[in-house]
Amino acid sequence: MKQNRVDRIMAALKEMGLHQMLIVDPMSIYYLTGVYVSPFERFYGLYLREDGHHAFFLNRLFTVPQEVGIEKVWYSDTDPAMEIVAKYLDKDAPLGVDKELKARFLLPLMEMKAAAGFVNASLAVDNTRGIKDEEEQELMRISSDINDKAMAQFKAIVHEGVTEKELADQMLKIYMDLGADGYSFEPLVAFGANAADPHHEPDNTVLKVGDCVLFDVGCIRKGYCSDMTRTFYFKEVSDEHRHIYETVRKANEAAIAKIKPGIPLCELDNTARQLITDEGYGPQFNHRLGHFIGLSEHEFGDVSSVNTDKAVPGMIFSIEPGIYLTDDTGVRVEDLVLVTEDGCEVLNHYPKELQIIG
Amino acid sequence: MKQNRVDRIMAALKEMGLHQMLIVDPMSIYYLTGVYVSPFERFYGLYLREDGHHAFFLNRLFTVPQEVGIEKVWYSDTDPAMEIVAKYLDKDAPLGVDKELKARFLLPLMEMKAAAGFVNASLAVDNTRGIKDEEEQELMRISSDINDKAMAQFKAIVHEGVTEKELADQMLKIYMDLGADGYSFEPLVAFGANAADPHHEPDNTVLKVGDCVLFDVGCIRKGYCSDMTRTFYFKEVSDEHRHIYETVRKANEAAIAKIKPGIPLCELDNTARQLITDEGYGPQFNHRLGHFIGLSEHEFGDVSSVNTDKAVPGMIFSIEPGIYLTDDTGVRVEDLVLVTEDGCEVLNHYPKELQIIG
Repeated sequence: MKQNRVDRIMAALKEMGLHQMLIVDPMSIYYLTGVYVSPFERFYGLYLREDGHHAFFLNRLFTVPQEVGIEKVWYSDTDPAMEIVAKYLDKDAPLGVDKELKARFLLPLMEMKAAAGFVNASLAVDNTRGIKDEEEQELMRISSDINDKAMAQFKAIVHEGVTEKELADQMLKIYMDLGADGYSFEPLVAFGANAADPHHEPDNTVLKVGDCVLFDVGCIRKGYCSDMTRTFYFKEVSDEHRHIYETVRKANEAAIAKIKPGIPLCELDNTARQLITDEGYGPQFNHRLGHFIGLSEHEFGDVSSVNTDKAVPGMIFSIEPGIYLTDDTGVRVEDLVLVTEDGCEVLNHYPKELQIIG
Repeated sequence: MKQNRVDRIMAALKEMGLHQMLIVDPMSIYYLTGVYVSPFERFYGLYLREDGHHAFFLNRLFTVPQEVGIEKVWYSDTDPAMEIVAKYLDKDAPLGVDKELKARFLLPLMEMKAAAGFVNASLAVDNTRGIKDEEEQELMRISSDINDKAMAQFKAIVHEGVTEKELADQMLKIYMDLGADGYSFEPLVAFGANAADPHHEPDNTVLKVGDCVLFDVGCIRKGYCSDMTRTFYFKEVSDEHRHIYETVRKANEAAIAKIKPGIPLCELDNTARQLITDEGYGPQFNHRLGHFIGLSEHEFGDVSSVNTDKAVPGMIFSIEPGIYLTDDTGVRVEDLVLVTEDGCEVLNHYPKELQIIG
């Protein structure tokens, strides 16, 4: 158990008037215990309580290390799992529950009156996970460092006649050779007009002169995810496409320049959006500016026009403005940033200047 | 909407004293509408009610066909989704909820008193899905037919010095060339002692003479899943391993021979388990005999020692006894079976006799 993380969650629960919580999100449990299990339909839960009498509920079919520093409560498929869980809960106090807890587990606990009330307390976990400690920050730097190096290699394998799929198919090996454990998400490779479709998957489209080459890619290393986008142009770039590119790059840089503790996250979105709108492309920037990231590629928290939460040191999120012209081109420039005591550290170092390649 | 399937669910709900239900499992919604959406963290639900005033709750970011034969209720990320849902519910009657409904959606509905009670009513959907109609039976036959053909090809690519991963890496192309749309689950390839570990993933283990070669594999075609296991031995087999193999094969065949409408599913498990126990390997058959399958590789329903539900024509499940000797070998023989009016139809036709290959 990472006691420091447990303590932060217990403090957040206390502020919500809670002294017990049942966590079921496998990634949140990994964050606290270092144990990862895919429970599928079976119950899997970590129960935390103020007095330290935590319990880890496990099906006998799950494989976990001998020692996890917490009481393990095993059940079999033929046991009444939720009755076993109920015995550990303080039934005279409200229970914080994970937002992911399913009705099939929550309703029986309610019927048994296993607690004096049931409250979605996931914010206590999510906000804690949203502020990375030093160990996590270092792992995020390493993952993004691999991503920077990989991007240089992805650029190098672009050539006339290549297809999106041929490029995408080479990426896993490049990542693995650089020390990654895998993708953090399936790589997005889009040429020309395909880059205007956010749902585009790498296909047999052949690269043409004047196309943009958009790579939205990331790897995972020791559990932590990277995520970066760069857009190149192949052999030549039209004046309008150059203007779009420079607008997006400036929006990325302007938003990053504003990051410091205390700034509302919506102000970062507004900064990028205003700059793009001033150039006449507001409607063509049709998504939020960024998302939180860490153990999952998309974690709770975002950088959007409606999120008034303030930046806090330790937060890591993406800054990824874009302009998408249907049937024409798409440009996105994305970095991960870590909020620091007096500003931010950009975790990606791959250049952002427009590159005409090939 | 598949009206026949909706009618069967409404009848099952009525027997539970319910006249309204909120379904959220994307696969159950696909089963009823033909529409598949991956909602991720967003709310996605199909509301069914006795009077036919159904509603389909969709986030504006979801892509669905123009016509689905049901009222679509769109919401945006900035809308109070659960308040919109609540307006459609009959608040004076209990609501059947999907077992997969998450606390983040269920708790707000409860706080709004959006219904007169909340009941896990998934059995109404799951038992309906558990009995395949003719259209589904035919799709299941096709998917298993591809799996039979693929197994023959998997056997043919086994050779001395090959690794588990090298075999696994060739499987997707083989399936696709046979007309599959993809895997129904990541293929399990295990040599020798690795086959004794049910959680083993294909790795760089090199095939040795006398190893077992266990393939637990399946594909998906038009939404429907196949799943079959065969265990071969490479070049030679010891007397004990042969005995284990024959015991497992007989357990598979004895259970299948007993299948007919009305037989409690636990009796099938008992038949296979008793046969294995009589040979002294009872503790080494450490899982249930089978699981239901269809649109998902593992559907609700199983063939276990505690499931007293009776076989009904249209049910499709796996029969997969196994014996696992730690640090030594593992054998499993698995087929899918369809319960018929007077017995069963085995959907897999790949031979089960022990094959020494290589």
